[in-house]
Amino acid sequence: MDSLRFVLDQSEIPTHWYNVVADLPTPPAPPLGPDGQPVPPEKMAAIFPMAILEQEMSAERWIPIPEPVREIYRLWRPSPLIRARRLEQMLGTPAKLYYKNEGVSPAGSHKPNSAVPQAYYNREAGIRRLTTETGAGQWGSSIAFAGQMFGIDVRVYMVKVSYQQKPFRRSMMQTWGAEVIASPSSMTQTGRDLLAKDADNQGSLGIAISEAVEEAASRPDTNYALGSVLNHVALHQTIIGQEAKKQFEKAGDWPDVVFAPCGGGSSFAGAAFPFVADNAAGGRNGKPVRLVAVEPTSCPSLTKGVYAYDFGDASGFTPMMKMYTLGHDFMPPGIHAGGLRYHGASALVSQLYHEGLIEAVAVPQLATFEAGVMFARAEGIIPAPESNHAIRAAIDEALRCKASGEAKTIFFNLTGHGHFDMAAYDRYFAGELENFDYPAEAIATSLQHLPKFG
Amino acid sequence: MDSLRFVLDQSEIPTHWYNVVADLPTPPAPPLGPDGQPVPPEKMAAIFPMAILEQEMSAERWIPIPEPVREIYRLWRPSPLIRARRLEQMLGTPAKLYYKNEGVSPAGSHKPNSAVPQAYYNREAGIRRLTTETGAGQWGSSIAFAGQMFGIDVRVYMVKVSYQQKPFRRSMMQTWGAEVIASPSSMTQTGRDLLAKDADNQGSLGIAISEAVEEAASRPDTNYALGSVLNHVALHQTIIGQEAKKQFEKAGDWPDVVFAPCGGGSSFAGAAFPFVADNAAGGRNGKPVRLVAVEPTSCPSLTKGVYAYDFGDASGFTPMMKMYTLGHDFMPPGIHAGGLRYHGASALVSQLYHEGLIEAVAVPQLATFEAGVMFARAEGIIPAPESNHAIRAAIDEALRCKASGEAKTIFFNLTGHGHFDMAAYDRYFAGELENFDYPAEAIATSLQHLPKFG
Repeated sequence: MDSLRFVLDQSEIPTHWYNVVADLPTPPAPPLGPDGQPVPPEKMAAIFPMAILEQEMSAERWIPIPEPVREIYRLWRPSPLIRARRLEQMLGTPAKLYYKNEGVSPAGSHKPNSAVPQAYYNREAGIRRLTTETGAGQWGSSIAFAGQMFGIDVRVYMVKVSYQQKPFRRSMMQTWGAEVIASPSSMTQTGRDLLAKDADNQGSLGIAISEAVEEAASRPDTNYALGSVLNHVALHQTIIGQEAKKQFEKAGDWPDVVFAPCGGGSSFAGAAFPFVADNAAGGRNGKPVRLVAVEPTSCPSLTKGVYAYDFGDASGFTPMMKMYTLGHDFMPPGIHAGGLRYHGASALVSQLYHEGLIEAVAVPQLATFEAGVMFARAEGIIPAPESNHAIRAAIDEALRCKASGEAKTIFFNLTGHGHFDMAAYDRYFAGELENFDYPAEAIATSLQHLPKFG
Repeated sequence: MDSLRFVLDQSEIPTHWYNVVADLPTPPAPPLGPDGQPVPPEKMAAIFPMAILEQEMSAERWIPIPEPVREIYRLWRPSPLIRARRLEQMLGTPAKLYYKNEGVSPAGSHKPNSAVPQAYYNREAGIRRLTTETGAGQWGSSIAFAGQMFGIDVRVYMVKVSYQQKPFRRSMMQTWGAEVIASPSSMTQTGRDLLAKDADNQGSLGIAISEAVEEAASRPDTNYALGSVLNHVALHQTIIGQEAKKQFEKAGDWPDVVFAPCGGGSSFAGAAFPFVADNAAGGRNGKPVRLVAVEPTSCPSLTKGVYAYDFGDASGFTPMMKMYTLGHDFMPPGIHAGGLRYHGASALVSQLYHEGLIEAVAVPQLATFEAGVMFARAEGIIPAPESNHAIRAAIDEALRCKASGEAKTIFFNLTGHGHFDMAAYDRYFAGELENFDYPAEAIATSLQHLPKFG
């Protein structure tokens, strides 16, 4: 029986994260403050520990993973690389399909890869509490889990509409000992002001970020943690692609193309960045690996956005970053892939795209669910709606191979399982989902509100 | 970094199931029909394929696992054996705790271990449809998945109250292409009769079994599948304990005691039966491994039942089996471990208990959730309420070791994850769960209704 699952021993968990900044042709553009000047790291020290800020600014290629972090990683890592042979057979393609199953983590997605080191560095800095925000709940669950692992109290501001609609993500966070607050809340000035205006305010990710940051900034024992977009988050996620490279070596194969869903960019960075190093050296097989970010047509920051300085949050509270953006006040349509509803892409992903080192493609919602159901029926695992984006693009590539007769090796990032997203599958089966095609008009409007710097 | 996860290669998936009947001191008592006479296998052939019936009656020690079944098993098997070192540290025990994580299957529990071969043997017999029943949804999900793997249509009669309360288990089955019917339904005579009497009938597992069997018996292209209790189900589950034994060899350790939750008995049989073979030969280390079935105090068939012939279902539709029973019409209290709400224990588990080859212990509901939360906070994984029973017993043993200073090796079966049981955790945190202590009076009543045979 040949193997379809390529498993590494725990001793093979990478010892270093890979920092793509070392292989960028040009240095990253700095984050800018409200005055249009680069933000000094010290200004961020009120809410982040220095070790994280150093990673955020670092240009070192390899950054060591602390042993206590590897100790927690091995509760589920190395995650398996799996050959999706039943899916290949279902499609009748000569292509070989492989996926990395990040859904095996306790929180069910790739997010703990960064939550764990963030909790660790904060504890090492003497921090006893973390605040964060969560929408769909993947990040909030992950930081709740990571906080529990290191004895740090966690308060999660959960967008009120999600708090009400996704009670089981909330229960999961509480099981790991986190406190979950519906946002907007009376815990912060931001929340109180909003509730005074409208007691029924249903919240948004932007509001939840503002509440979490306000609290962290005002309490010396409390810091803030973010689950995507920033450089240090992308750094931590590179453990995915590094493991995958070792596993492809064991499989005696190598990808021609990599697909990962892309919202803020953490899962794409994790799967794809480690291949940028090879590509910079001409590619392992004498040709570069194609690296493709997959985004929703309804929120197409890379494929339809502009490359400009913009705020990281909806309300203009954060520093400005140079990135592909649809405008910080663009409100994405209500697709079920909540993790991809972000107006921009991380600065590093954006720069790689701008410099032509990666590609991007946009896929509509219905086609992603169709792909997810096909995957579940072939491989058993029910994927998260975000993951369905990568699966869709991988299936499309496999079908192109079927037409052309090419036996390409396709690798995609299965970022999580869909156990907490079954309501979305229900709506898909009931024919209640829509595609939300490219919202050109809304984007044109929000792009008029870009800040005037940069 | 020493290993805490003991992973086997896919080539090490066992090639045979272990049949404990070969190591029983006395032959099993036969199932009896309504006339008090042994039921001939031919009578069951209307709803089961011959290959399954042969396994049901077999006394062969080793039964080969067909290659197409191993092919599907390897979508998730071998499942990992994990050393719960963080839990050991939290308890401050000198004991070593290991668990087998059966929650890694697509359906999230050990149930697919039997669903897959059942679907396979039915397809080989030319059967195109399977009916089954499900309460909490673990078995229904597993047969939905397995049917999809072999191209067999599946209809699941789901107890109506569960159908309404657990919509996401239903969505999961539908994602794998199964048809899910709220029971009682208008699909069967049984259902129509009940609905005519009471249109609001909320259903029960006994009713759902009757509907599934009635339909299978009346259609030549359709068979029936059962997820616990029967000998062939126990047989298929032994892959758990066989893998665990190989993994303990790799770990250089060996269990002193094994704990598994016990309702109908499939997960206990899976984890414990393969050690019966060693015990029959005096034990691997010169002493037998203690094998402990863990049941709820509210439904204590082994610890408080009688060993007698009784029906397998609530309504007296099935053959009678010799087993520990609380009486077939005993209605277990509404604990959240739905998989353990069964009035009896499988004939094989019962016989082993009667002959003193295994032990049993009962634990109350609140203590099981306390143990589950402790496990989640130490090891990350949120367990199914059924699994929490084994965890409770394992923790209690580890605490006894702490008191005595003994460094025992404790092995328990983590039968599934709790992603679809978060409502139960919610109620636990809200203080809304009760213990449902030993229901002596109800049991005394139902025991008066035992059939008068045997």
